Amino acid sequence: MGENRAVAVKTELDPGIAGRLKRNEDGLVAAIVREHGSGDVLMLAWMDDEALHRTLTTGRATYWSRSRQEYWVKGATSGHHQYVRSVALDCDGDALLVTVEQVGAACHTGERTCFFDELPVVTP
Amino acid sequence: MGENRAVAVKTELDPGIAGRLKRNEDGLVAAIVREHGSGDVLMLAWMDDEALHRTLTTGRATYWSRSRQEYWVKGATSGHHQYVRSVALDCDGDALLVTVEQVGAACHTGERTCFFDELPVVTP
Repeated sequence: MGENRAVAVKTELDPGIAGRLKRNEDGLVAAIVREHGSGDVLMLAWMDDEALHRTLTTGRATYWSRSRQEYWVKGATSGHHQYVRSVALDCDGDALLVTVEQVGAACHTGERTCFFDELPVVTP
Repeated sequence: MGENRAVAVKTELDPGIAGRLKRNEDGLVAAIVREHGSGDVLMLAWMDDEALHRTLTTGRATYWSRSRQEYWVKGATSGHHQYVRSVALDCDGDALLVTVEQVGAACHTGERTCFFDELPVVTP
């Protein structure tokens, strides 16, 4: 677990917002990303306080990469930018819903969304 | 962390699906729940293998409650049932997108969705 812990970065996130966050043991909250217009869910990523601060103040979706252990401005290397339209926090403070204008594919595989692997469901 | 670990339950989840899951340290994957029809994102919950198995085979959204440490068939106590229309796994196997017919409010606060706390975003 320790290797996934977010680096403690001095952040200017509004204390009124920071006080409502319920972070996991790595200091992160889940960020559900959906596309403005279509409403399609594109991906799930993670934010620490500073990533949320950057997202809210720059309008560019910024995450904490658990694999690379660094901040990650979506599209910075791929060109698949996410321009933020709105951000909402959930009732218990551990998940965000980020609505974006998505340029190109959201998924690193080149698919439009990360949720392309449909599982079989038996409906009653 | 230990107190949040999912109980090891014998599960009949299809091994072909189980092999694609990338569980967190508590044995869970995130489940993003959206409403069929509107496409609105309703809530974020968590599933272990058995919760996913029950969801896929009963068509009733079933989660692992981290706070209560038990399986939780959505609506069993509230009447706010979720009838599953589809389930998709994401590209790296650690998140599910569950599309449901939602009866009543999805949120325990009585709101239709859990994401009602809009944060201020400065757009470029």
